[in-house]
Amino acid sequence: SGLVLVKNPHLDLMEEDVLYHLDLGTKTHDLPAMFGDIKFVCVGGSPNRMRAFAQLMQRELGLPGAGEDVADICAGSDRYAMYRAGPVLSVSHGVGIPSISIMLHELIKLLHHAKCRDVTIIRIGTSGGLGIEAGSVVVTDTAVDSCFQPRFEQLVLGDVVVRSTELDKGLAQELLACSRDIPDFPTLIGHTMCTYDFYEGQGRLDGALCSFSSEKKLEYLRRAYDAGVRNIEMESTAFAALCGLCGLKGECCRFPLL
Amino acid sequence: SGLVLVKNPHLDLMEEDVLYHLDLGTKTHDLPAMFGDIKFVCVGGSPNRMRAFAQLMQRELGLPGAGEDVADICAGSDRYAMYRAGPVLSVSHGVGIPSISIMLHELIKLLHHAKCRDVTIIRIGTSGGLGIEAGSVVVTDTAVDSCFQPRFEQLVLGDVVVRSTELDKGLAQELLACSRDIPDFPTLIGHTMCTYDFYEGQGRLDGALCSFSSEKKLEYLRRAYDAGVRNIEMESTAFAALCGLCGLKGECCRFPLL
Repeated sequence: SGLVLVKNPHLDLMEEDVLYHLDLGTKTHDLPAMFGDIKFVCVGGSPNRMRAFAQLMQRELGLPGAGEDVADICAGSDRYAMYRAGPVLSVSHGVGIPSISIMLHELIKLLHHAKCRDVTIIRIGTSGGLGIEAGSVVVTDTAVDSCFQPRFEQLVLGDVVVRSTELDKGLAQELLACSRDIPDFPTLIGHTMCTYDFYEGQGRLDGALCSFSSEKKLEYLRRAYDAGVRNIEMESTAFAALCGLCGLKGECCRFPLL
Repeated sequence: SGLVLVKNPHLDLMEEDVLYHLDLGTKTHDLPAMFGDIKFVCVGGSPNRMRAFAQLMQRELGLPGAGEDVADICAGSDRYAMYRAGPVLSVSHGVGIPSISIMLHELIKLLHHAKCRDVTIIRIGTSGGLGIEAGSVVVTDTAVDSCFQPRFEQLVLGDVVVRSTELDKGLAQELLACSRDIPDFPTLIGHTMCTYDFYEGQGRLDGALCSFSSEKKLEYLRRAYDAGVRNIEMESTAFAALCGLCGLKGECCRFPLL
């Protein structure tokens, strides 16, 4: 049916659903009227960048009000920021898996309550590139963990549940095809490694703690490259797992910082 | 000596240290002049709350400019916000372990470069209370993981390193003693459980996904209570591990949301 799925039998029994971290709710807001026509959701870490992205979409789509400021739909909360430009919703998710998970749980419920159909969700932003040309964009086929495995380990009541992290391969090919129309826009499809930590977790030598040598770091990154990893960030496995389970066509598309 | 320690031999070899996510650096800023007299650092999730806390400190300490707005020292970055009020630094860390870890790595290097001495760091904010009187404040003695163990598992180049999550017991007692002077301010010392997820990880029944019954949830929370857990949040194990390793006297002090 193309609807966004929630997999929670308790939700039907609730009189009201408060999307606390988004400052929205089923009793306080008419979610189908506000969001029912959304077809694309783009998410990224920084609130300022997601506002700039919504303004870019307004201009590109030739929408009324282009060039003016856009309003933060979640202005009552300073956890996340949300902007819309026509059928495109632009939402910030902060840094790391725990932060994006909260936002995605509430966003998925929002799209479900709003009865949105055939929604495509794309994660955009920066990442660390691995052995690729400077300025390249990586479109993720599969998100992998720090051991290069295509899995997301979710703790549910203290027990580990392992989830798949495959993304929509058709959408990845579509995005790659789009890039072909733009001159000097190097784009490739590869695995994206997702870590829980920026400094020690990604082999950086400049954190407050560092117990490894430059050689050990390079050996780890070489193993990652050999396993198909082309960029590193901190949210993709949770993004892939949650979107996959809830019927959202999802993709990660990132500009590496080299 | 009371100095803040960094445990990274590579740092001494670097000409410049850019604290990227704080928009500060050793060549662009005179960190000893800006921060050398800092004695207390308070950290919390929300930027607005940390601004309000800095304003409260200004009033309480009778500082010049009290009642006026405070400037965000990290205004050039929208990842974290930082304010100061006399010897108190107030810093936001976003949601979850990956987000607080980046901020703490850069904050610890900042305090190190600034040659600060005898710094006390306190994490403040809201949390979910467990079997305690409404409105109580929990001062953490030990942060525990989702299996109620006093450990933080850090992935370093794909390998698990286990770290201690004990906090400063003397500081916990001092904070408890302070609370005794305030009427109707129920305060207790207990374990704080730290999870990677807000919905499934903390047994909530209202996420986009929920695979467990209300009974299973209550059984899990009862086991947590029996293990000494009195509140639940998402940053304390990483906070305790990093502060402990770097010689910062650290404590978590949280107002539960019940």
